[in-house]
Amino acid sequence: GNKGAGALTFQQAIQRLQEYWASVGCAVMQCSNTEVGAGTMNPLTFLRVLGPEPWNVAYVEPSVRPDDSRYGDNPNRLQRHTQFQVILKPDPGNSQDLFLHSLSALGINVREHDIRFVEDNWESPVLGAWGLGWEVWMDGMEITQFTYFQQSGSLPLLPVSVEITYGLERILMSLQGVDHFKKIQYTEGITYGELFLENEKEMSAYYLEHANVDHIQKHFDDFEEEARSLLSLGLPIPAYDQVLKASHAFNILDSRGFVGVTERARYFGRMRSLARQCSQLWLKTREEIGYPLGTYQEANLVYPHVSEKLSRKEVLGQAQTFVLEIGTEELPPHDVVEATEQLEKSLVQILGKRRLSHGKVHTYGTPRRLAVVVENLCLKQMEEEVELRGPPVAKAFDQEGKPTKAAEGFCRKNNVPVDSLYKKIDGKTEYIYARVKESARYADEVLSEDLPTIISGISFPKSMRWNSNIVFSRPVRWIMALHGDLVVPFSFAGISSGSQSCGLRNSSLANFKVETAESYLHTVEKAGIVIDVQERRAKILDDSSTLARGVDGDFIAPDSLLQEVVNLVEAPVPILGRYDDSFLELPKDVLTTVMQKHQRYFPVTSKSTGDLLPYFITVANGSISEEVVRKGNEAVLRARYEDAKFFYKMDTQKNLSEFRGQLKSILFHEKLGTMLDKMARVENVVAELTLVLGINEGVIPVIKDAAALAMSDLSTSIVTEFTSLAGIMARHYALRDGLPEEIAEALFEITLPRFSGDVFPKTDAGIVLAVADRLDSLVGLFGAGCQPSSSNDPFGLRRISYGLVQILVENKKNFDLTKALTLVAQVQPIRIDNDVINEVVQFVTRRLEQLLVDEGINYEIVRSVLMERANCQYLASQTAAEMEAFSRTEDFPKIVEAYSRPVRIIRGKQIESAWEVDASVFEKDEEKALWSAYLEAVDKIHPGVDVKTFVEASLLLIQPLEDFFNNVFVMAEDEKIRNNRLALLQKVASLTKGIADLSVLPGF
Amino acid sequence: GNKGAGALTFQQAIQRLQEYWASVGCAVMQCSNTEVGAGTMNPLTFLRVLGPEPWNVAYVEPSVRPDDSRYGDNPNRLQRHTQFQVILKPDPGNSQDLFLHSLSALGINVREHDIRFVEDNWESPVLGAWGLGWEVWMDGMEITQFTYFQQSGSLPLLPVSVEITYGLERILMSLQGVDHFKKIQYTEGITYGELFLENEKEMSAYYLEHANVDHIQKHFDDFEEEARSLLSLGLPIPAYDQVLKASHAFNILDSRGFVGVTERARYFGRMRSLARQCSQLWLKTREEIGYPLGTYQEANLVYPHVSEKLSRKEVLGQAQTFVLEIGTEELPPHDVVEATEQLEKSLVQILGKRRLSHGKVHTYGTPRRLAVVVENLCLKQMEEEVELRGPPVAKAFDQEGKPTKAAEGFCRKNNVPVDSLYKKIDGKTEYIYARVKESARYADEVLSEDLPTIISGISFPKSMRWNSNIVFSRPVRWIMALHGDLVVPFSFAGISSGSQSCGLRNSSLANFKVETAESYLHTVEKAGIVIDVQERRAKILDDSSTLARGVDGDFIAPDSLLQEVVNLVEAPVPILGRYDDSFLELPKDVLTTVMQKHQRYFPVTSKSTGDLLPYFITVANGSISEEVVRKGNEAVLRARYEDAKFFYKMDTQKNLSEFRGQLKSILFHEKLGTMLDKMARVENVVAELTLVLGINEGVIPVIKDAAALAMSDLSTSIVTEFTSLAGIMARHYALRDGLPEEIAEALFEITLPRFSGDVFPKTDAGIVLAVADRLDSLVGLFGAGCQPSSSNDPFGLRRISYGLVQILVENKKNFDLTKALTLVAQVQPIRIDNDVINEVVQFVTRRLEQLLVDEGINYEIVRSVLMERANCQYLASQTAAEMEAFSRTEDFPKIVEAYSRPVRIIRGKQIESAWEVDASVFEKDEEKALWSAYLEAVDKIHPGVDVKTFVEASLLLIQPLEDFFNNVFVMAEDEKIRNNRLALLQKVASLTKGIADLSVLPGF
Repeated sequence: GNKGAGALTFQQAIQRLQEYWASVGCAVMQCSNTEVGAGTMNPLTFLRVLGPEPWNVAYVEPSVRPDDSRYGDNPNRLQRHTQFQVILKPDPGNSQDLFLHSLSALGINVREHDIRFVEDNWESPVLGAWGLGWEVWMDGMEITQFTYFQQSGSLPLLPVSVEITYGLERILMSLQGVDHFKKIQYTEGITYGELFLENEKEMSAYYLEHANVDHIQKHFDDFEEEARSLLSLGLPIPAYDQVLKASHAFNILDSRGFVGVTERARYFGRMRSLARQCSQLWLKTREEIGYPLGTYQEANLVYPHVSEKLSRKEVLGQAQTFVLEIGTEELPPHDVVEATEQLEKSLVQILGKRRLSHGKVHTYGTPRRLAVVVENLCLKQMEEEVELRGPPVAKAFDQEGKPTKAAEGFCRKNNVPVDSLYKKIDGKTEYIYARVKESARYADEVLSEDLPTIISGISFPKSMRWNSNIVFSRPVRWIMALHGDLVVPFSFAGISSGSQSCGLRNSSLANFKVETAESYLHTVEKAGIVIDVQERRAKILDDSSTLARGVDGDFIAPDSLLQEVVNLVEAPVPILGRYDDSFLELPKDVLTTVMQKHQRYFPVTSKSTGDLLPYFITVANGSISEEVVRKGNEAVLRARYEDAKFFYKMDTQKNLSEFRGQLKSILFHEKLGTMLDKMARVENVVAELTLVLGINEGVIPVIKDAAALAMSDLSTSIVTEFTSLAGIMARHYALRDGLPEEIAEALFEITLPRFSGDVFPKTDAGIVLAVADRLDSLVGLFGAGCQPSSSNDPFGLRRISYGLVQILVENKKNFDLTKALTLVAQVQPIRIDNDVINEVVQFVTRRLEQLLVDEGINYEIVRSVLMERANCQYLASQTAAEMEAFSRTEDFPKIVEAYSRPVRIIRGKQIESAWEVDASVFEKDEEKALWSAYLEAVDKIHPGVDVKTFVEASLLLIQPLEDFFNNVFVMAEDEKIRNNRLALLQKVASLTKGIADLSVLPGF
Repeated sequence: GNKGAGALTFQQAIQRLQEYWASVGCAVMQCSNTEVGAGTMNPLTFLRVLGPEPWNVAYVEPSVRPDDSRYGDNPNRLQRHTQFQVILKPDPGNSQDLFLHSLSALGINVREHDIRFVEDNWESPVLGAWGLGWEVWMDGMEITQFTYFQQSGSLPLLPVSVEITYGLERILMSLQGVDHFKKIQYTEGITYGELFLENEKEMSAYYLEHANVDHIQKHFDDFEEEARSLLSLGLPIPAYDQVLKASHAFNILDSRGFVGVTERARYFGRMRSLARQCSQLWLKTREEIGYPLGTYQEANLVYPHVSEKLSRKEVLGQAQTFVLEIGTEELPPHDVVEATEQLEKSLVQILGKRRLSHGKVHTYGTPRRLAVVVENLCLKQMEEEVELRGPPVAKAFDQEGKPTKAAEGFCRKNNVPVDSLYKKIDGKTEYIYARVKESARYADEVLSEDLPTIISGISFPKSMRWNSNIVFSRPVRWIMALHGDLVVPFSFAGISSGSQSCGLRNSSLANFKVETAESYLHTVEKAGIVIDVQERRAKILDDSSTLARGVDGDFIAPDSLLQEVVNLVEAPVPILGRYDDSFLELPKDVLTTVMQKHQRYFPVTSKSTGDLLPYFITVANGSISEEVVRKGNEAVLRARYEDAKFFYKMDTQKNLSEFRGQLKSILFHEKLGTMLDKMARVENVVAELTLVLGINEGVIPVIKDAAALAMSDLSTSIVTEFTSLAGIMARHYALRDGLPEEIAEALFEITLPRFSGDVFPKTDAGIVLAVADRLDSLVGLFGAGCQPSSSNDPFGLRRISYGLVQILVENKKNFDLTKALTLVAQVQPIRIDNDVINEVVQFVTRRLEQLLVDEGINYEIVRSVLMERANCQYLASQTAAEMEAFSRTEDFPKIVEAYSRPVRIIRGKQIESAWEVDASVFEKDEEKALWSAYLEAVDKIHPGVDVKTFVEASLLLIQPLEDFFNNVFVMAEDEKIRNNRLALLQKVASLTKGIADLSVLPGF
């Protein structure tokens, strides 16, 4: 197409952005003069977002990421790409609009394109920084990162800074309609490739192949030492410069394949610590030099007084609709759902509490608005009489029976006549009382007070600040609150409520007035917004279905994806796009992963064969140009598939087994060796582990074959690129190489579960591999001193061990954890003490405990079971579930009580466990009866016994125990008799051994 | 003043420059992402200026120079300053105009300001790069560096690139009228200081105090190793990146005071070698990838054909004025003078050779034009008959006497009738001859052919290329050549001659036409240009004198300065400026050094007291606004004096002796220690050296006292800032500290001579110190392996030893060089072999040889004298001079001849030097006569004898020798007689010993 005709050159685009941001008050500055991976690391961002000084800046940042080195072959990825970075501090309140205007400055018609703010929360473990915000997508392509910084240098930020980071190469490729960065017109007559392709090639070779790792490791240490020394001298700026150099050194090491997944965390920790100290010191220095740039005046932090005079129509008794719309910047999809639920719940609760009668309550939500509509909300509170207690009668009346000053005061205060008082006894004292009518206030008055609390009461998994200490999922930008045609006046986070709402971003109705609450839904609909979640869902499904049918297909919309898409748009417009048939050669998993996970597209399959068709459905937002948006999305998908194809071709030049050796270039941990070392250890232990897990030894040959290949796909190009395909590609490549299905499956299953809610390994081979890999990580990393702390689990060991117990429980496996860990410990390259193994056992047991509690089982019961059955993970889970059920029966307290008495008696006595009960020493029938009941019970109870059997057996003991304690004096003077009785009770008490420790239960 | 009102902010200035340079076709790019000391080092310049690809680029470069760290205290100096860099490749032909337009784009009224292009030749020893060009001054302030790159990476550049480097801080300070960089408005409401002052403070502390020298030295080595490795892998881009990192590491070491004057050269060599290899490899790579940016078409390199049809008025016989004006970019002042002389000389020569009669010849020169005016140049050559030789008569006529075809051909060719032939014998053969009239061509025709040769024949100390292989002092931009009213058509370096000339840069008459050669001077005068050097000189003197008188003063204009100023302007406008009285506290040398050396101002002294007055005179160029220019120059001087005052105050908080210890932070050479070590060595040897130099030992105490302080001023702030004040400040501070005059003077004299044409030490103490310091450098550096090579003398050892012999000769000192060197060798920290000492002796002797030859003495005579008297330097110089004078007398060949015969005879004979002459063995009178003449002569000749005496003595021998050789057969058969005769001749021959070795003279 002639998309690129007349488009800006790269150079012009930079100039336009500089001019634009300068025109709205930004200082235009220069890039860092030491390598940075992103504009964020430039001290113009990293240091300047700290503290109270206002700061508005824009600059170009050539960002160097050695790991993205692709020799210039990848059309979208460069070791040095160009960011355009903007910082707005404090949040100006309209940063999204400012951003959209900047796109117009670039010549982008924002009404034609599908521009979306897709949740993306940014975090830099190196900088100790995080923020909430979005990737900005244009027609499916990420063009900008937009973040409200919440923390930097491990310090909270107030005022919050808005960070806008444009990816210039991507934007220019799109504007110019070219499919490779090298084809971008940099300036008239010169392409990007002519300028920089050779640079990409050579720097890639340096970063990936030749950089001297020994030197650079040493330099990292040197930079760190220098930074520490400068910090101690009170010089944060040069210290931070050293942190940047350290960071670049780390990045090179990483790209040279010299940093393992776990090793990385240690490097990050070192850098984060330095970054934190730099930040603290910088802040201190700024304060000392008196904040040369001034300090932010927290004007917005004060709630403005509600000055609007209520000019209420006095039409009492006539209820009217109430509507509240909270307008926000784009909320994450799940937040939309949860927030509307919370909003409804707390509003209804408050209306009840405030005696405001109302009709039906409806909630609505889109990414940009949360709304609740209350039908027939009365105009005034219902009146209510309450009884108020006054002073004691003794003090209310004098000896002559006349009201004292105390009584008179009470009457005056509550506006009741003295003769309406009456007396009542409360406890031991007689008081005077009065009946008082609570005034019926107007609904708007009441809501004015309550609505801010309701809104701030909404909680989110992740909340952010923007202009004050008030937090919300994303910034609140307008509030519409109408009761009938009257505004319910209040303010929240510096916003005053009104009757204005906002339309779709790309419509001409940027703002519109809602005349009355009753007309709200209609007004919003007229603005093109589908405010009802279910309605949007239905529209998406209907339209998509129609589109898919048009190509004889069905579309695949997994529920989680559909749910997300529904809440990514306000006005869904499904669009069918096509991709080249040739891409269908790629594995289906690759194609769908890219579509669903990366692009939020619905794949389309053939109605007849069920195979993928070369189509996808994207759901655009608002009244865009379908043609423009389709073409844009097609171009994005094509670029991604070109990538994937390139990598897939590279991979399939080899067998999977050939990638195994390359695992040696991925460091796992400096003390524990490479991933190749790790997988060799796994290979070493699987045979014995199979037996420990009680799996048929016949499976061992398959397991060993699988172990010899497991994780090899980490070295493949496609997994390097699409990390979420780890395991999936191993399975795919194994099958492609003609390996047996069971081996291929095990190669996939070793990675399971990958995330919360994922599937679990099902085959024996998969289970063994998955367990072995996790045990190796646990023992090794605990042994290397990488235990999680209360706040910090850099190696994800909690997740690993949670997954481990899930695998066992799901697959009904029990195994001796200590034994298995000892097995794995023996193959570690470092010495593993028993203490370490015990520590791991405790740690894993706590995860099992968490798993069972998560399943809804009472914490005490879980604890009680795990005291005895922690080493039998599946059995423990079963027992806990049975015990939970049993705990709701009336027998439960009896049995707890029954076992508690023997235990309490023998507790503290010197009883040797070797003591046997001698029936000939019994003096009383009750002794004999208990003994015989015990013998009957013990016969039923065996290791691993279920709760039902245990309960049945235990019930046999209840009466005999009752009788025994009523008639037998345990502590007889005759030592022989006494000891025999104690031995008997000990036997009884020990019946719970191996089942549950009842003593931790309430009632014991 | 309100100079700054409405001025651009820093940010706007950058934007304007970017827009301007983009508008004339430059790519606007980003700064380097590793530290560079200047925009030149950015690969966008350093690599891109190589090879044939066109390249036009502009970028901002924050340039990091650790050595300029001043904690933000110095108003003009920052460790990170901002350059705006422009590269134009190939030279567009109007780069100066493009630059001036860019100043207009910055809002500078170029007609008001005195904008000058002051010779400044740029060289980077690190990059192996050099170029010729200018500092651009605006009202006395350097605002831009403007260079035609000639070489980079040790490779010649063609096409040549124009480099324009703006110093933005300086320019903005001037535009905004502020006196400290921190007061610059960076953007609206934010000053430069608010943004960066703290950065300057902290980074200064890092670079000057805290940077870990051990690490950084190691890093330098690492970067070098990495670069070498990458070069061997064929990767010039990452290799060059390492060179930049090495360079920054070096700069830090330097700023930490860890690189001595001499050590620096070694680092430079290492970096230069890498830079060269990067350049070579980069060029190779560009060729391999087929020059992506295209190749420069050498359109200008072809001389255009002269197409202008000559339409000459046929007014023969009427001679007319001829004028040639070569218009150039600003020539260095000394080139103006020399080039006009050469131009006149070679034009006159050619006119003669070409038989073109003419009247008086006048030459004129300004920085922008070289002109020659020839009065009454005839229109045509004078006719001339020449005799041409034809074939031999034998071949010209057949046997019948008829002309052969050979004769006919000769006649046809020369257009003569056969009957005009005549015969003449030439050698042994008779030839035919003819008289031929050489045609009289038009003067314009002849000059059209000769003028390009005349122009290209002008030679300069330094020449440059710009658009072709043609070289000149600076680019030639127009040529005006008129004979009467006709253009003499030719072309040179792509320029065609015409009748156009150019006016003053800042006038409205950018171009004007010269109607006739006769009107040239008048036309140029009307354009405001004073084309005559003497006239400019007179105007400057007159006007300056008037200005000085106005404040009751005289102005100081040393001849070299006046000469320079005269040739820095085309239309001199002396302007009197004032500086604050308070600066008069500064030492006079500081004040005048700044005025004369840095600013080319004339200082003004009081007519009554002779003391400095707070005034200066600057000579502006053209019709500027005097008010604006005065204020500008005053601001510049104020800034410089503020600097000097700051440093002077810092220095005077201590005694000079306290600076001595700080010499230990200036490394002299890694093997030879610091400057403190060096001066300790000097102190150690001065006593003995005094005696070797034959100086009265009574002076030793003073010399030792002076040695204990010598060079200490190198550690003072003011010398660090104004290096040319070394020695001068030592003297000043010593006197300030109350030390005796003789010590103070020695502290100054140790630095003498500092440059060619400088004064020499005069006091005994000064001589001893100066000699000791030079001997120490020579012995030490030769011993450390730093001998100069044929092309390379990084340590300036030639200059040092030339200075040494000058000191000796000027002060009439002789000393045993070997002895002195041995003395100095003993105190070196490294072992000095005798070989080294001999090498130094040879090296110094060659400098003495050079000195004497430079004085105009014949080379053979110098050699002859030095063979015998090299170790007596003053004596040798006297002898050589006397010998030179004597060599012009008639006795000289006689004496040479006289000595040559005995020498020739004894040469090759086995004669023992112990042989004595035995008068009793004489057989002949001639033997006896010679022996007695010898005895008389030898009595007159003593060590150190002067030439006159030697000649008188030698003359005694001439007749006896003549007689001897005529009558005595030396090689008699009788061995005794023979040996006695040989002994006699040997005695005679040895009379020249210790005076001169005559055998190297011609005629010997």
